[in-house]
Amino acid sequence: MNTPGTPARTTVDYLLGLGDDALVAAQRLGEWVTAAPELEEDVALANIALDQLGAARLLLSHAGELEGAGRDEDALAYLRSDREYRNCLLVELPNGDFATTMAKLLFLSAYQLPLYAALSGCADERLAAIAGKARKEVAYHLDHASIWTVRLGDGTPESHRRMRAAVAELWPYTNELFVADPAAPVDPAGLRSAFLANVEPVLETATLERPADGWGPDGGRAGLHTEHLSYLLAEMQVLHRAHPGARW
Amino acid sequence: MNTPGTPARTTVDYLLGLGDDALVAAQRLGEWVTAAPELEEDVALANIALDQLGAARLLLSHAGELEGAGRDEDALAYLRSDREYRNCLLVELPNGDFATTMAKLLFLSAYQLPLYAALSGCADERLAAIAGKARKEVAYHLDHASIWTVRLGDGTPESHRRMRAAVAELWPYTNELFVADPAAPVDPAGLRSAFLANVEPVLETATLERPADGWGPDGGRAGLHTEHLSYLLAEMQVLHRAHPGARW
Repeated sequence: MNTPGTPARTTVDYLLGLGDDALVAAQRLGEWVTAAPELEEDVALANIALDQLGAARLLLSHAGELEGAGRDEDALAYLRSDREYRNCLLVELPNGDFATTMAKLLFLSAYQLPLYAALSGCADERLAAIAGKARKEVAYHLDHASIWTVRLGDGTPESHRRMRAAVAELWPYTNELFVADPAAPVDPAGLRSAFLANVEPVLETATLERPADGWGPDGGRAGLHTEHLSYLLAEMQVLHRAHPGARW
Repeated sequence: MNTPGTPARTTVDYLLGLGDDALVAAQRLGEWVTAAPELEEDVALANIALDQLGAARLLLSHAGELEGAGRDEDALAYLRSDREYRNCLLVELPNGDFATTMAKLLFLSAYQLPLYAALSGCADERLAAIAGKARKEVAYHLDHASIWTVRLGDGTPESHRRMRAAVAELWPYTNELFVADPAAPVDPAGLRSAFLANVEPVLETATLERPADGWGPDGGRAGLHTEHLSYLLAEMQVLHRAHPGARW
């Protein structure tokens, strides 16, 4: 699968992909903390962001130790450029309106649930333990996003229109989640049917059409990101870059 | 204690004060979510913000029902102007640097701990239950802030200088926490010795001088706030005010 000049994907790349998905998703969800439509939703989104952040720490810490270059989770989070990030494009897209945020969370959690379930039985015992914990949290994220997708999709004409637009806009970005990866202990392509089994009934209950499959953008796993990630990292890393090590 | 033209403080005012302290503190802590010096601290501050937000919801919901004017916790959070907010000035001050944030958290939690402990035995059973739950959470906040105060105060010359400046700047704002309030089921003045017992040993271990007592600004409990609260509320309320009821 390698083109000349492209270094082979390693297990560290794979772990960075998992960790970066969670880290970038957490940052995006955290942007809602003072802006959710209800206090209850503020609390829910903050909790989901915290779960993702917690998983990100464990995954990046594991990746750093495996890499053996002395980078801990903070160095990996705060001192990599966007070209070194391995997250999928889906999580770095701007929050948009609340419907877009919920469609992103629906797709991400519908993918992470079978992914973590599979990884919880993998040979890397530490990864298996992280995945086993994260799996339970992600089940709640999927429930939460499903309820909102139905509430908005099967809601007012305006909420239906927005939820439909969000699903249509984001659907192509789900392709990247299932691209083959020689470094993956679990074949991503094999997760797609479980993803669809999580998503399709929700869309149907929400009176939303399941978008047709087709071409989708990718490149995130290889470090080729949208401009949005640069801005997100700039905000996340400003303190660390201005004060390396953040020691006084 | 009433000057002519000032309406008497009611139990609702008192509850709003408790809830607004927690709500505004949560918003300020939430501002750190993408900007803390370490991922671990990011998670810790987000957890503390969530605790405060959770307490705020319960307190505002209780205040709204007692008021009997049909305002739920969302209406109270999103549809009051700064003049209707009853929080102390301490929580609305800008985050400043990390030392300032930790000094604020130290003072707030050192006050909330004996406050909630006393309220957990008060006659209002619902308030007593809320306080009983919040008390356990706040004990952790106090531990967390104490550890950082010592780490920075008894750290490098630069961290000591910053922590000392933060404590000196914020100390006058603690006066307001203990002003007599005829509507309070627990006399605020009586909480001051417990507050000092929480704070003074921490400052001593941190090699920081306890500032002298003297005049301190107040007015928050009567709705007279610094300009900082207006900006905080503008950000928190923008969605709700642009889309009343936030329905699509």
